[in-house]
Amino acid sequence: MSHVYERVALIGLGLIAGSMGLAMKAHGLAGEVVGTARSKDTRDVAVGLGLCDRVTETAAEAAKDADLVVLAVPVGAMGAIAAEIAPHLKPGATVTDVGSVKKHVVEAVSPHLPDTVHFVPGHPLAGTEHSGPHAGFATLFENRWCLLITDAGCEAGAVANLRALWEGMGANVEEMDADHHDLVLAVTSHTPHLIAYTMVGVADDLRRVTDSEVIKYSAAGFRDFTRIAASDPTMWRDVFLTNKEATLEILGRFTEELFALQRAIRTGDGEQLFDYFTRTRAIRRGIIEAGQDTEAPDFGRGTSRK
Amino acid sequence: MSHVYERVALIGLGLIAGSMGLAMKAHGLAGEVVGTARSKDTRDVAVGLGLCDRVTETAAEAAKDADLVVLAVPVGAMGAIAAEIAPHLKPGATVTDVGSVKKHVVEAVSPHLPDTVHFVPGHPLAGTEHSGPHAGFATLFENRWCLLITDAGCEAGAVANLRALWEGMGANVEEMDADHHDLVLAVTSHTPHLIAYTMVGVADDLRRVTDSEVIKYSAAGFRDFTRIAASDPTMWRDVFLTNKEATLEILGRFTEELFALQRAIRTGDGEQLFDYFTRTRAIRRGIIEAGQDTEAPDFGRGTSRK
Repeated sequence: MSHVYERVALIGLGLIAGSMGLAMKAHGLAGEVVGTARSKDTRDVAVGLGLCDRVTETAAEAAKDADLVVLAVPVGAMGAIAAEIAPHLKPGATVTDVGSVKKHVVEAVSPHLPDTVHFVPGHPLAGTEHSGPHAGFATLFENRWCLLITDAGCEAGAVANLRALWEGMGANVEEMDADHHDLVLAVTSHTPHLIAYTMVGVADDLRRVTDSEVIKYSAAGFRDFTRIAASDPTMWRDVFLTNKEATLEILGRFTEELFALQRAIRTGDGEQLFDYFTRTRAIRRGIIEAGQDTEAPDFGRGTSRK
Repeated sequence: MSHVYERVALIGLGLIAGSMGLAMKAHGLAGEVVGTARSKDTRDVAVGLGLCDRVTETAAEAAKDADLVVLAVPVGAMGAIAAEIAPHLKPGATVTDVGSVKKHVVEAVSPHLPDTVHFVPGHPLAGTEHSGPHAGFATLFENRWCLLITDAGCEAGAVANLRALWEGMGANVEEMDADHHDLVLAVTSHTPHLIAYTMVGVADDLRRVTDSEVIKYSAAGFRDFTRIAASDPTMWRDVFLTNKEATLEILGRFTEELFALQRAIRTGDGEQLFDYFTRTRAIRRGIIEAGQDTEAPDFGRGTSRK
């Protein structure tokens, strides 16, 4: 495949950017990949692992002459990075990001960018509970969705190139507007993460059930929560601070439903519980059919293969 | 290995009993395995799959002459089964169960059993989101915990034999009392399941986020919840109805913590969120070190290997 971009700048070199660097190399999607990160250690690791061809000390240097600039820092840091790189952007360049919320990123980044560049926000729905440059791998985006935000009047050619890059890395691409993105993600990701964090915190607090018991007997369901709750704290703090409205709305719905089920338990209404649990099974079936998980009985398993 | 029991009766032939049948055969732990289930279809499937050597139409027939009787039916059905088999139990036989709650099972089963048999309640912490006789496999219990309830003055020899059976099937065995079991499981299993069911139900209800979007973008965290929420509805209805007290207590703790985090989101208290999310990471580390999960970045993955 010929290069989609001659020069790509990765601002931030964590799990997502590192995986992008490896995937672009593996599929020959970029002529040169330049990376930068605040920490010298991270930059050294990134070069050592081949996540990019070379690193620069500042974001401004990395962005200079780049055809695509990828903002891959926590959502709360996007605005400051945009302000820093703006004077150095090449006319005609595309700027994108990989943040988990989109309305806030659009509001924080857009005002800084000159009219001569294209801003196409993005969000690859891929990741693991690990973070940092060591966590990246080239196949992270295969068969995953990448959402591009195209309601801000993006130029069609710029969108097409960015789509080609993500498809080249194995992702399926969908376009939507920022508000809808933030609501969908509040349901499928942000609220589930907050709930998982909460449950793990509750378990940690309980003195009558010792930590060692919680850990020993985690395979009974709790274990999946701990995997979610092990995700990067900085990233998730920023997600909740910047997708506040949608998250609080879905949390409100959640507690309403939870109280209804809690009441059914208290009053012994087995029929209501049974009907509810039967309905949720159908969604699982849909996810397997959509290829977003396998039918293999992974839950409660996995360990013995260690 | 010589047989631990000459004849084992499996009452109920779902995921757990079926896996026990296969594991006992694989390791030569039982001379003969007799099975029974209410449905003729299930009995036929069980014989076809080799989950047991032969089946009987009634629980009473299966229990007759058995050295070990395993009650593997939903918790709500245990009492009636115990009443049915009681007159047919061989003196000196051991009765056990595999239910997910223990205090209720002890209260429902014990009054029916004659003094001539040993009742040692059990709970293997193993399972998948699948149910029924087709779901069983011989390695289900390997490196999993099996909890035996020994506070009711069980005879030491009966406990030792049951322990040998579970260890022979690959499980690690721990003894505890029924109340403590129910509290530990409320934390590590019952409340997480109720929360997962609730979140999946909320997603299903939301009209602005279509079902197809919820399913497509599930890999962002929601997917792990749907796996938990696909578990057997009858079993889980009975769990919540019979471990009401401990579940409601942990649910109360959960909503208290959730409201605190919700308030931190609303007021923009990033420090509180960051500290909370950092603390929960340590628990994940403990689970990996305890061998109850692997460090492989499974979350958000798995699909591409389909």
